[in-house]
Amino acid sequence: MQSFVAQLAQRIRGGMAPVVIGLDPRLDALPQRVQPDAAPAARILAFYQAVLPRLVAHAPAVKPNIAFFECFGADGYRAYEQTCALARSLGLLVVGDIKRGDIGSTAAAYAQGHFALADAVTLHPYLGGDSVEPFLGPCRPDRGGKGVFVLVRTSNPGARDFQDLRIDGEPLCEVVARAVTRWNAALPQSDGYGPVGAVVGATWPQELARLRTLLPHSWLLLPGVGAQGGKVADLAAAFDGHGLGALVNQSRGVMQAFAPDATDWLDRIEHAAQTFAAECRAVAQAKSPSQPKP
Amino acid sequence: MQSFVAQLAQRIRGGMAPVVIGLDPRLDALPQRVQPDAAPAARILAFYQAVLPRLVAHAPAVKPNIAFFECFGADGYRAYEQTCALARSLGLLVVGDIKRGDIGSTAAAYAQGHFALADAVTLHPYLGGDSVEPFLGPCRPDRGGKGVFVLVRTSNPGARDFQDLRIDGEPLCEVVARAVTRWNAALPQSDGYGPVGAVVGATWPQELARLRTLLPHSWLLLPGVGAQGGKVADLAAAFDGHGLGALVNQSRGVMQAFAPDATDWLDRIEHAAQTFAAECRAVAQAKSPSQPKP
Repeated sequence: MQSFVAQLAQRIRGGMAPVVIGLDPRLDALPQRVQPDAAPAARILAFYQAVLPRLVAHAPAVKPNIAFFECFGADGYRAYEQTCALARSLGLLVVGDIKRGDIGSTAAAYAQGHFALADAVTLHPYLGGDSVEPFLGPCRPDRGGKGVFVLVRTSNPGARDFQDLRIDGEPLCEVVARAVTRWNAALPQSDGYGPVGAVVGATWPQELARLRTLLPHSWLLLPGVGAQGGKVADLAAAFDGHGLGALVNQSRGVMQAFAPDATDWLDRIEHAAQTFAAECRAVAQAKSPSQPKP
Repeated sequence: MQSFVAQLAQRIRGGMAPVVIGLDPRLDALPQRVQPDAAPAARILAFYQAVLPRLVAHAPAVKPNIAFFECFGADGYRAYEQTCALARSLGLLVVGDIKRGDIGSTAAAYAQGHFALADAVTLHPYLGGDSVEPFLGPCRPDRGGKGVFVLVRTSNPGARDFQDLRIDGEPLCEVVARAVTRWNAALPQSDGYGPVGAVVGATWPQELARLRTLLPHSWLLLPGVGAQGGKVADLAAAFDGHGLGALVNQSRGVMQAFAPDATDWLDRIEHAAQTFAAECRAVAQAKSPSQPKP
């Protein structure tokens, strides 16, 4: 079985767009026609059962954000598990947006639980290397081939509060980026990329080139396009000369691309995914449109 | 209904020790006699159904770490909900050790879900003020009276990696402490303390006095005693002159204070809790043993 990063590269080389579709279920944004009388978790699962097959042709991966599932308690948590399982059964890679981070022994419990559900997960850096370490063993191709994306530069305005603080003239987020590169260096690469990636908000395009340089072998997960104000056209610096190295995330712009009472909501979501994919593919390949892929 | 911080102060003034017992269920550390043939989540719940009534006389609060529940999936998540509900029904305050942290709209979903279960929760600071903000409204006494503990100085060795980085000569964890104090300043206090507390590892006693000064109106949650090497005797600086202001956590040292095949495991846990409580009470009151409480 190929690792997460190997599968990602293979799919994008094969023509898929470098995108990931965020799954952030909000009850007030589900189509009215999807099981209106069912419990929240059942409605959410029914929505994804209908939608996920429509995404397979347009995106290599989905990114369920567990917050929007676990706010419905254990039933919501089960819907998260079922959504992950459904996506993987359809051939979609799953990035579990869990943003966990705890001391070593606790991190090991998180790694065990979440890598059973997802191909990759997002992690907080604040607790340092030993909080990330338990996730790295399962990233080895012979031990699961999983992936992680460490929060480096987040997409929200509050990212400035601590991530901009200067340490010997360098912002904290760049120091974290260097740590990600160190953690990544100890692990095997595929297509030039190791399994330790980084979250870099698409809302800070002026910082992309610098972070790309500091993270030469990391996949970048770029959230913040659409509702948060990030623009795909500003993200070219995130990609390498082969259109690899970054995944642009869109959540609301695709999964809420319909009026609540629309009858054609599935078609509208698929159309939005297709449009978004085409836009990202064009930007990713802008650097070297005529270069043959190695 | 009194706020979390008001209840905490009231109980400790009333003679309870300033302690919180960590609930980190590990299957290999459960008594062999507790439903050995049941599923993990059922074993965990049965364990706490037996143990929690024994803790009520010795601790004002418990701190379930959700990692050790959610590693068993949705069933484990339900056991977390049930453990929180059971503890609260027994009169224990519940600090949900969830260590969440996400952008504003997502943080709102976490706040909604987790404040329905716990009286207070732990939070990551890396995403800045707007990631903490959705948790602060429910901290107002008239909107739920909840509490939060922001990770400032964690108990693990890797805490050094980023939390020690110097910003204009001051370590990052102190900059975060100042931010906690700012967030706290906008909210009503009870007994001199607001609802925005801080996690400060008991493994760094030499830093306690300084962080106490930077966090004058915050309850400090002090994990790391026992298995991680922290010593209760070193924590006096965390308390104010009335024995308030800090909660010492112990998890394994109390909840694993028995041999797996012991028949008297309940008595041993209660004895360990009682001993731990007495030790913490003595240290908390060492500063002003004869001062009358205001």
